[in-house]
Amino acid sequence: MSKRITVALDAMGGDGGPGMVVGGVVIACERYPDLDVLLYGDEARIKPLLDAQPGLKGRAEIRHTPHAIGSDDQPAQALRRGRESSMRLAINAVKSGEAQGVLSAGNTGALMAMAKFVLKTQSDIDRPAMISFFPTIRGESAMLDLGANVKCDAENLVQFAIMGAACARIELGIKRPTVGLLNVGVEDAKGNETVKLAGQMLRDGEFAFDFYGFVEGDHIGEGTVDVFVTDGFSGNVALKTAEGTARLYSSFLRDAFQSSLLSKLGYLLAKPALNRLRAQVDPGAYNGAVFLGLNGVVVKSHGGTDATGFANAIGVAVDMARSDFAERISRDLHHDGVEPETLAISTAVTPDTASKVV
Amino acid sequence: MSKRITVALDAMGGDGGPGMVVGGVVIACERYPDLDVLLYGDEARIKPLLDAQPGLKGRAEIRHTPHAIGSDDQPAQALRRGRESSMRLAINAVKSGEAQGVLSAGNTGALMAMAKFVLKTQSDIDRPAMISFFPTIRGESAMLDLGANVKCDAENLVQFAIMGAACARIELGIKRPTVGLLNVGVEDAKGNETVKLAGQMLRDGEFAFDFYGFVEGDHIGEGTVDVFVTDGFSGNVALKTAEGTARLYSSFLRDAFQSSLLSKLGYLLAKPALNRLRAQVDPGAYNGAVFLGLNGVVVKSHGGTDATGFANAIGVAVDMARSDFAERISRDLHHDGVEPETLAISTAVTPDTASKVV
Repeated sequence: MSKRITVALDAMGGDGGPGMVVGGVVIACERYPDLDVLLYGDEARIKPLLDAQPGLKGRAEIRHTPHAIGSDDQPAQALRRGRESSMRLAINAVKSGEAQGVLSAGNTGALMAMAKFVLKTQSDIDRPAMISFFPTIRGESAMLDLGANVKCDAENLVQFAIMGAACARIELGIKRPTVGLLNVGVEDAKGNETVKLAGQMLRDGEFAFDFYGFVEGDHIGEGTVDVFVTDGFSGNVALKTAEGTARLYSSFLRDAFQSSLLSKLGYLLAKPALNRLRAQVDPGAYNGAVFLGLNGVVVKSHGGTDATGFANAIGVAVDMARSDFAERISRDLHHDGVEPETLAISTAVTPDTASKVV
Repeated sequence: MSKRITVALDAMGGDGGPGMVVGGVVIACERYPDLDVLLYGDEARIKPLLDAQPGLKGRAEIRHTPHAIGSDDQPAQALRRGRESSMRLAINAVKSGEAQGVLSAGNTGALMAMAKFVLKTQSDIDRPAMISFFPTIRGESAMLDLGANVKCDAENLVQFAIMGAACARIELGIKRPTVGLLNVGVEDAKGNETVKLAGQMLRDGEFAFDFYGFVEGDHIGEGTVDVFVTDGFSGNVALKTAEGTARLYSSFLRDAFQSSLLSKLGYLLAKPALNRLRAQVDPGAYNGAVFLGLNGVVVKSHGGTDATGFANAIGVAVDMARSDFAERISRDLHHDGVEPETLAISTAVTPDTASKVV
């Protein structure tokens, strides 16, 4: 029998509030018989919801606090004034060992800042990164960083590749994931100095994954590689552009079906198939971005998610918590023959010396 | 009666070769009665195609050259060794005044390098940029830079905003376009130093467009603004990600319709409407990226385009050539109260001094 897993939940984060969170807990507890949750937030709002779910008895515990982080709060402000907030106390539960992972649908910047402050960055890693999975023509791929680091150097990108591959191994069950570096062209000479240098380091080094080379934006939907590595600016733009394009296409499709009587009838006939399509591209199905590189499992849910999406994000936290992820990354870093000290240098490494570094 | 327009065409560029190019010319000459074209390339291949189109008599002229730029040629190599190539000679025709615009479906990097070398950058502009239009939920928007500049400073982004707005005025017919700066969040404090500084300059300055503020990737499909401004790295990633996501969605849709007899029947009934949808998202309908900031009209077609797509790109060249575009940008720069000298500074301007600069 596998060990029980406890996930600490920020019950006050997200547009749906405690109702959405408890709804997600109901679904997740059915899916994961070995899951227990700690619900941080306003007891007066959470308790009635929990009492209505007798199935959760003994598996969900409320930790009351009247304080919550606002969605517009600045990270620094959240750090200073949010010490008793539901988000912070949920993170603290991972630090103290009471929980093996934490999940919030609240303010992303505040979650990252507080998680870094409380859990600290893994000793081998310069900067944590955000990763998420998404559907592709070939199946499923992941991309990082999604916005934690708006400026990255080549060493950061190499570390992202190592962390991303480790995460893909766990979530996708692929032994040797393929990793691609996002660029404006596939040829070695393309791109800015940072990606060119990172590309060279990834080509020359020995890693526990296969470096595919440079990839472009249209490879994301194709699923050309398992893990797409880029800086937090481009990664954030790419992920949100993909979401926006999917919505645009859905909108055009809706208009097309509405345009005549025949097309309306066609829609009715194809409806079950189209509902499956909707489920395929539903952002909720891929809910749960993971903060990699921290001493502990931290997962961020979409703020606008529903109970099912939140349950999926709980699932990601459970998978990661079961995997001893931080431990694995450490092992990969060393197995990959990369010394933490050399990775930690943040000054410019010229292309000439890069091959000696890795 | 409007003045006749001559567009110089690189007949050897693109996957479809001279056949696709001449096919595009046939369509474009029907659409634009005042259009004439010069076809640069291998006469032995072009002449039979042209002879088969008596309607083009007197409107299309072949300029023979046996040399062509390869799709894998490096820009520097193209500059050195491509002096007699079809692409270079077509650009020369704009320089000499024989043509009012040039169009190629060939190697993008070579086209930019040769166009910059021959036509030179406008005196008010530091760096040329690539812009393209695309469909959105609200209609049509444009984005720049799409890859000409993989590293940009804040002044570059401000110049892109001015050039992009001028282009949107011509192509979309909007008097005061809205301009948004692509970022990882909409709040002023979000993003890297470059976008923060550019955002402040655009907020503080007086321009011939409305600065909307920061926009995110999902605003692209929404069409939240008329012009999306970003550096060439993010812009290239965003555009290609959008194209890839549209293909992913099409692939899922095809699978959905194939999944049962009923859904196949539904497809048949909705087919005319779905064909209109396909036309709506067809990249060919939005073919023709414009190089802004040069002393002359230079348009790049998708390499994989068909004759209809190429005709659309010819149309973009005609629109731009008719508009005295370079002249207009110069006027906008001054009308916007921005002195060319202050825009030309490429050293770092601190946020504190930025408001004094613009």
